[in-house]
Amino acid sequence: MPGTVGDATHIALEEAGLSYERILVDFSSAEQKSEAYSRINPKQRVPALVFDDQVLTETPAILLYIAQVATTSVLNLPDDPLELAQIQSFNAYLASTVHVAHAHGARGSRWTDDDSAIQALKAYVPVSMGQCLALIESEMLQGPWVMGERYSICDPYLHTLCRWLKGDGVDIDDYPAVKAHTEAMNQRAAVQHVMNANES
Amino acid sequence: MPGTVGDATHIALEEAGLSYERILVDFSSAEQKSEAYSRINPKQRVPALVFDDQVLTETPAILLYIAQVATTSVLNLPDDPLELAQIQSFNAYLASTVHVAHAHGARGSRWTDDDSAIQALKAYVPVSMGQCLALIESEMLQGPWVMGERYSICDPYLHTLCRWLKGDGVDIDDYPAVKAHTEAMNQRAAVQHVMNANES
Repeated sequence: MPGTVGDATHIALEEAGLSYERILVDFSSAEQKSEAYSRINPKQRVPALVFDDQVLTETPAILLYIAQVATTSVLNLPDDPLELAQIQSFNAYLASTVHVAHAHGARGSRWTDDDSAIQALKAYVPVSMGQCLALIESEMLQGPWVMGERYSICDPYLHTLCRWLKGDGVDIDDYPAVKAHTEAMNQRAAVQHVMNANES
Repeated sequence: MPGTVGDATHIALEEAGLSYERILVDFSSAEQKSEAYSRINPKQRVPALVFDDQVLTETPAILLYIAQVATTSVLNLPDDPLELAQIQSFNAYLASTVHVAHAHGARGSRWTDDDSAIQALKAYVPVSMGQCLALIESEMLQGPWVMGERYSICDPYLHTLCRWLKGDGVDIDDYPAVKAHTEAMNQRAAVQHVMNANES
């Protein structure tokens, strides 16, 4: 589904130069909750990377897999176990804290069935997402890419979440290093390919 | 801090046979929010794996690092990139969905400052954690270990979260495969070592 976290996987597949087919899971008809899609991913979420007889889910794991097999691409992983672990650490933070903060805007029903609580969660997203961005800006983003001079699977993932900031009530101008990262990503052919595909 | 997700790292270090020092971060005095600890981990969370000049955070990344360096231990990683990605997929689900569902019980202030919303989040934990456990039971836990016959870094992580179920209002008897996993984990020397250390 264009505009979801699936974009990070789509960008990574383009960066990796791998052959793939993109298949729409249409959120406007709640296709992610359909019986057919639930057989592919019983979590009823996107994305799912489907092989002949295997399915891989969870963005940090999908990006790791793409980087592991695309050894001749820009996504090739470092040999040092600690460098690899730092890449996974950054992406784990995006998955378990940043994406989760964002999800309280539109998916509060995952954590409560109380309508006024759902509204309260939605109202707080600018605060919690702002806290995440402040930490990324001051402590985590090395620049120009997340891991410094080395482009990695952290970059498409961060870029995808940063495209949500306006809707989350966060002004990217408050975070100049993050803004520079987004602008650098927007220049990449892989990102432009995905943005064009999303609009078509 | 004993009883937190730090237990998963502690068990993994024991399984790996690595030399380490455990340093208490005392939640009863909010030490995780102290200036001294914030310099180690500005996220103000546990655990943090500290080297001479490096810090590694986020449980899925710490467990990956331990398994990468402990190649002669039971945690040794599979050579197949897809098998490794499936391990990371399971642990990403624990980090970004299961642990997050649990955290709405005691840490609702991460996502709202509305007291009645915080109470609503707390009340819903048995539902959301029950949904997670049902999915793990029916779709994810291969048995006897998470990845089948191969013990992995998924097992200490799942075990740590399952020790929280009673407090979350979830009856582990409703999930016999998960219950069998917890009981098998309780027999392991590494788990017994950590549980004894936590009580002392």
